[in-house]
Amino acid sequence: MKISGLHYRTIWPTASGSVRVIDQSRLPFAFATIDLETLDDAARAIRSMVVRGAPLIGATAAYGMALALRSDPSDASLDEAARTLKATRPTAHNLAWALARMRAALATVAPADRLEAAFGEAASICDADVEQCRAIGIHGAEIIRRSAAAAGRTLNILTHCNAGWLACVDWGTALAPIYRAHDEGIEVHVWVDETRPRNQGASLTAFELAAHGVPHTVIADNLGGHLMQRGRVDMVIVGSDRTTAAGDVCNKVGTYLKALAAHDNAVPFYAALPVSTIDWSIERGGDIPIEERSPMELTHITGRTASGNIETVRVVPESSRALNLAFDVTPAKLVTALITERGVCAATRSGLRSLYPDRGLSA
Amino acid sequence: MKISGLHYRTIWPTASGSVRVIDQSRLPFAFATIDLETLDDAARAIRSMVVRGAPLIGATAAYGMALALRSDPSDASLDEAARTLKATRPTAHNLAWALARMRAALATVAPADRLEAAFGEAASICDADVEQCRAIGIHGAEIIRRSAAAAGRTLNILTHCNAGWLACVDWGTALAPIYRAHDEGIEVHVWVDETRPRNQGASLTAFELAAHGVPHTVIADNLGGHLMQRGRVDMVIVGSDRTTAAGDVCNKVGTYLKALAAHDNAVPFYAALPVSTIDWSIERGGDIPIEERSPMELTHITGRTASGNIETVRVVPESSRALNLAFDVTPAKLVTALITERGVCAATRSGLRSLYPDRGLSA
Repeated sequence: MKISGLHYRTIWPTASGSVRVIDQSRLPFAFATIDLETLDDAARAIRSMVVRGAPLIGATAAYGMALALRSDPSDASLDEAARTLKATRPTAHNLAWALARMRAALATVAPADRLEAAFGEAASICDADVEQCRAIGIHGAEIIRRSAAAAGRTLNILTHCNAGWLACVDWGTALAPIYRAHDEGIEVHVWVDETRPRNQGASLTAFELAAHGVPHTVIADNLGGHLMQRGRVDMVIVGSDRTTAAGDVCNKVGTYLKALAAHDNAVPFYAALPVSTIDWSIERGGDIPIEERSPMELTHITGRTASGNIETVRVVPESSRALNLAFDVTPAKLVTALITERGVCAATRSGLRSLYPDRGLSA
Repeated sequence: MKISGLHYRTIWPTASGSVRVIDQSRLPFAFATIDLETLDDAARAIRSMVVRGAPLIGATAAYGMALALRSDPSDASLDEAARTLKATRPTAHNLAWALARMRAALATVAPADRLEAAFGEAASICDADVEQCRAIGIHGAEIIRRSAAAAGRTLNILTHCNAGWLACVDWGTALAPIYRAHDEGIEVHVWVDETRPRNQGASLTAFELAAHGVPHTVIADNLGGHLMQRGRVDMVIVGSDRTTAAGDVCNKVGTYLKALAAHDNAVPFYAALPVSTIDWSIERGGDIPIEERSPMELTHITGRTASGNIETVRVVPESSRALNLAFDVTPAKLVTALITERGVCAATRSGLRSLYPDRGLSA
């Protein structure tokens, strides 16, 4: 996607052998990049959410593995890199998926050739992600096109958190259909959940949509239910950090509440995701580990003062504890359909099997 | 309730004829009071949420009417005061209720005697609110006592927004049962929804509970559903800004989402409210006017910097619109029961009629 007229991906290799990423912790008020030189740089970038979003976490982990081989291309180094990166964040499935793919690709390569192979494989993961997100956009835009035609007016789409191009390598998952529909001239308006804590909606989704010129309105996470009751939401599209083989969707905390409200008001609720997000080994969403992050993400907020400085303020009294669990699980029964790079399917085992006949049968 | 060992109400008359209130817009980081001298002072305090919470809005409106009579005790002044105060906030029913009660009490009083009568009636409204909230505490604590006995462990209660003593004159509505249960030695722990925008949970409920020594944890509004799915919430208690004759509950935006999650997980969901919150003239919650407030309450957040200054930061990019609707409606079907000063009843017309046989029949 473009920022100030220049095309960007969220991650790319530099000529000097490092990997450059957009520092998402500084958006929306500053656009800056960071160069990752080492395995530890990559692990830190994932852990601290300089990069975030399930597909981008996978892509960064792939490059992190490549960076580890710069100093030591041995089997032991490969093992250590995978262990370190795997431990950065527990919920997003794309992390484990990317690491497994990198290991499979490098296992039979001689140590001397591994660095080049690793960068090649990471680039290929990124290219595949872009292509998958593009395809998700095509399949999802078809749903939007039909709904807009039926409605005969601007279509109001609610999204939670950021599953845009910043969460991926390009295009996005939940936002890809919206970008595509908008580019086709379909009138869409996006309700952007602020997405506490960390405010990925207010700071990243709003930033993305504004940069692309898509009409949108930021709302408190609390407001979506009321808007649905009043007929002001035509559909919900979210991303996914891990999708079970039976179609349960683990995504940023609060997604489940929106799915309940959508169900109560007969508003279609879609999750958009590439195959790398599907964990074929898990059936029940309740079995997915839910990441607990620092309470400071809730008790403190960073923003821009009237004088233009970036400042962090505490918003919860010191005398109060805070708990920050980052994800929840939306049971498949609340999901109207899954939008994947292969098309749209029911959020069921058989639905997924119809799109992935090769994968739906085993772990 | 007590702050630093001193007993406070949220509003009280001073010896000089003004009315003193706690400035809730500065909590939790500063505890300060403001003296209201005129009708306009009172109207501004309500509009700007220096005072907030349905019962306290009613009490402040009552005193606002008395303040108007200081300079002019005529019928015209009475009319003007009622009009001005009524226009401050559209959703809380206690506002209209208190104004009607003041007018009824003053209508037959000669202008020369009105000022004293008005202060007397406002004080009586406040005393009645305290007594009603105390009674809500007794009835609600009985529910908590039974649930805690059945659970045999610390009871986890989730609340949304602030319906504590700061929202009333004393005690609170939703928090009154919790204070009472805690004081009786029942082990309770409160999940405090941050409550975006304006953060009344993080800034007021957390402050109140900490001051009283009730164990609690602040969470993002997004987290409650997940906690319910994992069995970590035993009941939900919220307040109400307006309750219809059929039991629909209009409360701070986001309440509906918690009611949906409670219903989906078989967690009891209670609304606690005094009779003054019940609008006997409205049946359907959808007919309640929903207040739209400044988008700045969403786009900007005030808190304390590391150096101790109070600072306001922008958290939404300038290029994005924001919408701030302050309330939503929880349909009666999602409400396990209403807790009022007269006892506990079903959230139905007949349930309310069983407690208010004199009121349930007409507007």
